[in-house]
Amino acid sequence: MIVLIKDGAKEEQVRQLIERLESFGFQVHVSKGVVKTILGLVGNTARLDIDLIRSMEIVQDVKRVQEPYKNANRKFHPEDTVITVGGVTIGGGKPVLIAGPCSVESEDQILQVARAVKRSGAGMLRGGAFKPRTSPYSFQGLGAEGIRLLLLAKEETGLPIVTEIMDQGQLPFFDGVDVFQVGARNMQNYELLRVLGTLRKPVLLKRGFSNTLEELLMSAEYIMAGGNEQVILCERGIRTFETATRNTLDLSAVPVLKQLSHLPVVIDPSHSTGMASLVRPMSLSAIAAGADGLIIEVHNDPPHALSDGPQSLTPEAFDDLAKAADLVFQAVLAGTAAMTS
Amino acid sequence: MIVLIKDGAKEEQVRQLIERLESFGFQVHVSKGVVKTILGLVGNTARLDIDLIRSMEIVQDVKRVQEPYKNANRKFHPEDTVITVGGVTIGGGKPVLIAGPCSVESEDQILQVARAVKRSGAGMLRGGAFKPRTSPYSFQGLGAEGIRLLLLAKEETGLPIVTEIMDQGQLPFFDGVDVFQVGARNMQNYELLRVLGTLRKPVLLKRGFSNTLEELLMSAEYIMAGGNEQVILCERGIRTFETATRNTLDLSAVPVLKQLSHLPVVIDPSHSTGMASLVRPMSLSAIAAGADGLIIEVHNDPPHALSDGPQSLTPEAFDDLAKAADLVFQAVLAGTAAMTS
Amino acid sequence: MIVLIKDGAKEEQVRQLIERLESFGFQVHVSKGVVKTILGLVGNTARLDIDLIRSMEIVQDVKRVQEPYKNANRKFHPEDTVITVGGVTIGGGKPVLIAGPCSVESEDQILQVARAVKRSGAGMLRGGAFKPRTSPYSFQGLGAEGIRLLLLAKEETGLPIVTEIMDQGQLPFFDGVDVFQVGARNMQNYELLRVLGTLRKPVLLKRGFSNTLEELLMSAEYIMAGGNEQVILCERGIRTFETATRNTLDLSAVPVLKQLSHLPVVIDPSHSTGMASLVRPMSLSAIAAGADGLIIEVHNDPPHALSDGPQSLTPEAFDDLAKAADLVFQAVLAGTAAMTS
Amino acid sequence: MIVLIKDGAKEEQVRQLIERLESFGFQVHVSKGVVKTILGLVGNTARLDIDLIRSMEIVQDVKRVQEPYKNANRKFHPEDTVITVGGVTIGGGKPVLIAGPCSVESEDQILQVARAVKRSGAGMLRGGAFKPRTSPYSFQGLGAEGIRLLLLAKEETGLPIVTEIMDQGQLPFFDGVDVFQVGARNMQNYELLRVLGTLRKPVLLKRGFSNTLEELLMSAEYIMAGGNEQVILCERGIRTFETATRNTLDLSAVPVLKQLSHLPVVIDPSHSTGMASLVRPMSLSAIAAGADGLIIEVHNDPPHALSDGPQSLTPEAFDDLAKAADLVFQAVLAGTAAMTS
Repeated sequence: MIVLIKDGAKEEQVRQLIERLESFGFQVHVSKGVVKTILGLVGNTARLDIDLIRSMEIVQDVKRVQEPYKNANRKFHPEDTVITVGGVTIGGGKPVLIAGPCSVESEDQILQVARAVKRSGAGMLRGGAFKPRTSPYSFQGLGAEGIRLLLLAKEETGLPIVTEIMDQGQLPFFDGVDVFQVGARNMQNYELLRVLGTLRKPVLLKRGFSNTLEELLMSAEYIMAGGNEQVILCERGIRTFETATRNTLDLSAVPVLKQLSHLPVVIDPSHSTGMASLVRPMSLSAIAAGADGLIIEVHNDPPHALSDGPQSLTPEAFDDLAKAADLVFQAVLAGTAAMTS
Repeated sequence: MIVLIKDGAKEEQVRQLIERLESFGFQVHVSKGVVKTILGLVGNTARLDIDLIRSMEIVQDVKRVQEPYKNANRKFHPEDTVITVGGVTIGGGKPVLIAGPCSVESEDQILQVARAVKRSGAGMLRGGAFKPRTSPYSFQGLGAEGIRLLLLAKEETGLPIVTEIMDQGQLPFFDGVDVFQVGARNMQNYELLRVLGTLRKPVLLKRGFSNTLEELLMSAEYIMAGGNEQVILCERGIRTFETATRNTLDLSAVPVLKQLSHLPVVIDPSHSTGMASLVRPMSLSAIAAGADGLIIEVHNDPPHALSDGPQSLTPEAFDDLAKAADLVFQAVLAGTAAMTS
Repeated sequence: MIVLIKDGAKEEQVRQLIERLESFGFQVHVSKGVVKTILGLVGNTARLDIDLIRSMEIVQDVKRVQEPYKNANRKFHPEDTVITVGGVTIGGGKPVLIAGPCSVESEDQILQVARAVKRSGAGMLRGGAFKPRTSPYSFQGLGAEGIRLLLLAKEETGLPIVTEIMDQGQLPFFDGVDVFQVGARNMQNYELLRVLGTLRKPVLLKRGFSNTLEELLMSAEYIMAGGNEQVILCERGIRTFETATRNTLDLSAVPVLKQLSHLPVVIDPSHSTGMASLVRPMSLSAIAAGADGLIIEVHNDPPHALSDGPQSLTPEAFDDLAKAADLVFQAVLAGTAAMTS
Repeated sequence: MIVLIKDGAKEEQVRQLIERLESFGFQVHVSKGVVKTILGLVGNTARLDIDLIRSMEIVQDVKRVQEPYKNANRKFHPEDTVITVGGVTIGGGKPVLIAGPCSVESEDQILQVARAVKRSGAGMLRGGAFKPRTSPYSFQGLGAEGIRLLLLAKEETGLPIVTEIMDQGQLPFFDGVDVFQVGARNMQNYELLRVLGTLRKPVLLKRGFSNTLEELLMSAEYIMAGGNEQVILCERGIRTFETATRNTLDLSAVPVLKQLSHLPVVIDPSHSTGMASLVRPMSLSAIAAGADGLIIEVHNDPPHALSDGPQSLTPEAFDDLAKAADLVFQAVLAGTAAMTS
């Protein structure tokens, strides 16, 4: 970390600042230039509150040389993290398809969808039981009953289950669930992250729709700081001025996150676009960008879905997509193998 | 609510849609034009899931004629809501100043600040005890001990207390607190909103930094739907591409919210700008825009604050600001009184 | 177009409005419902100023049923537009690679790059001669001399030339240029668009970094309204709160634009990301999304480039990318051919 | 300017970089720390292309210590710039009201409005003659005839004229115009800025709706670099995700710009909000924030305006606003005079 001192700061003040920084456990190297006095801090700056330094009287600015996260950082963990969920591995290999309805609606619905996506090669089953909805008057999900139905589907198909947790009070219902999903609106619900960090079950962490990638990694760090290293990052669209799509899918997030972190990255093309007709091109696009998986809404009867019908694929369209995704993945592999530079 | 039917929809399909809408309790009026078939719905459409309608097969688009919130809506409650907190009233009158440090740090600090802002005319004391921080390694607040210190300051000065709750698990510590603050990151933490809706204590609800004003009102609706009508709306800056300020303070939010809703609106010029030098102009600006209050960070020793020092005012600067804010408020009143059109 | 009338509007006022709308050449169909009085307009509403209608006293809102552009609209031109530039076709087939340096710097540089990208299969040569720079003190490009050098490279390699025009005063220098590029900052420079509409040479129109896709199509419409139908749309990243990349590449733009319009769509992965290491994944991603072409910065010596070095590929990396892009394109084709639903 | 060298850079490479920087005319001070090697540059870094430095092979990052603009910078020109236009002064004193219709429509209209706003104390008359419109099918303004009518109004009322120029080809029509307005869409039309920089007539430069304040100042710098020091900065709303207002008025821009620059700052509350009912509160808010002027749309008959009727004030509402604005300005002055800290 580099600390720029304000012009006109007194010797005495600089000395006091250095002492304070040393009291935090850093080695401090001073360089007095003609342009600026600069302090270089050596030590674990990821564990330092940068705002605290910035707020000091004689500090003009602070510049991190290292990222503010450590457990999630590829620098300290160069190999891809591979997470195994019920026999399925995610991270650093063939992309995993996580598919299922936006909301669990009935036993019949979830079983039909589960069987269909299993046949098409999905690796996990997704489905909403506890649903965060903008309006208190919208359908809020089947709750605990929804999870019971997901577990029925798991029993029949063997597919591991991914479903959203909104509050630690819901934890008792999640016993048989394989992966906790943290939704975009809760990405910075730090109490929830902290609790999930104390568990030893994978967490699929969705990027908040106006959070930076660094903030996403910081939220992963909250979970990992508690000892739970199994975090799957998920890009699901960010909020911009554009209204043609529900959100703007930021696919650059895939290579950026994979440079910065060793955690697996999955893409949600359904919520980000909000339109079924965009799910296929954006899915293929995500695979080509290097995503480790896709989380896709599939409904046996989209026009009668209780939520998000317009963005759900039919099982047939999902089957076509699964085949095409594999072709694109193979093409990218072949392209990489042929690289000369 | 107006429902546009897709071109080419069959008679039979339209009939089925009408029956379904009627089954939700609406009267449906059909107008078949040359351009479009349009359905008009009469009934309490605020309680309807618009996505559900939009997802129906033959529906091209849905247009609300009414807002999707009812309890928070000025149409159904034309008079300003006035909330009384420990003898202080907020809403529809003289703006209330809510002041105090970002974080409670010590008994000495909070008492000094409380006495000072009381002298300058603040109506409530703010201070963070449970702090949502981007990094798990940053100072997380004094927690329950912080609330104990706030209550000491309340006892001495008589100032009602506003402090943030991040999770319902923290509720037991909030007994003596006068106003729950819900932070920007939790504006759509629906479980928390739901619990606060069952209580009968005012909630200061901060706008998420990428939430629309309609979403803010929907989150207020979550609280009010539970029977807690005492919601104070707070604009604290939104996330944009601009980097000169920490966030972009959206002061248009004041007149827009006051047109749409009867709830009081307060402005946070400290977090939105992130710079003490901008707090005064933005505070006066907020008063001129019609805000019912300001929530301002004041610290007895900003350069040594444990969080957000650079945006904190000294007690002296706050005193100057309080006087100027009153002058501007009186000027706006006089201007309104002199209106001829 | 559907016009909602305000509650409480008088019979007489509605009659006057209808007459005014009829005077613009529309048929007006009235439907008086219990909920709302609604007018349906039949006629060429693309040629109507929607703001004019919205501003009328008794109008509550106006909703387009048709898009506000006509020449660029796929509804009126279902087949993909194919543009031929010096023997190279763009649109609806194999993606075209447009490659070259950010700025033309010297004869040696442009010839080296041109030969290299030609060998790797590029279809056109790009290079900046007139450069729009944020600072008046930055290198502004070689201007007319830069175009002369581009034409030398064209003569030698046969590659058609794409280069940016910033002002109609520069037109005399563009004689031998094959495609005018309109940069993001000039997407709504309507005088420039109007002039280019009177010519019969293709225009590569870049999306402004905060313009919606509808606005991009409206700017294309400006050019096409003048009779120049050869417009290539280009997505080059939009401005968001994210700082990890220079801009956020909106790849959903590809399928959205191709649904709305028949014009070819190309992607600029270099400017949008600002980092060479992201160009390859984003290029493959764009191809998988269905792009008709890529416009990529290639420099023979990136570290010594006079502008945008950090985002330029070496000729070797471009060669690798060209091969991989072809593999991905073939995979997408195969996936489409295998579709059953 | 501070240049961070990448870890692992060789002695020889650092030496070459230093030589290159010295060849640009800088003094270079090296500090080799344990953390990082850092170069400090002394000299006129405002005139340096920062991207050029950043693109160099061994450079990790570059941090400006000085702003990239010089003529517009308050550091080099501490006093407020005061611009005199036809006897009216703008900058550093009483705010100036610039009022008039969005578009000039007829002699009768512009004369009526001009007389009315003059009576209410407006200092300048605004009105659009050349109009940048999103659609080629919208009303494009009266052009040269519009300017002729503005000059008639000037002759009768003595009010100086502010009107928009979109292209240097329109210059011949602007002889009698007192202030060139550069619209938001042309803020980075550098050819236009360059030409205006060669003239000696004030320019009212509107912030592009997705441009940062630094970019606005860089565009001012383009004009000033040509020798035309008379630039008036104008904030008119930026593009965000919020849809309740047309754009988000960034009032923090006022104190930020006034800290960074000596140029006058005016606010456009009409275009930013798009709604007449928000113009009054946002105008008073702008005055309280310290704006040097307001540019407000006034129309004698808003419901029949040919453009932007919904955001125009009636002459009566403008008169009320002018009085209230003065009261608020006096209150702010009194508040400042009473400051003790």
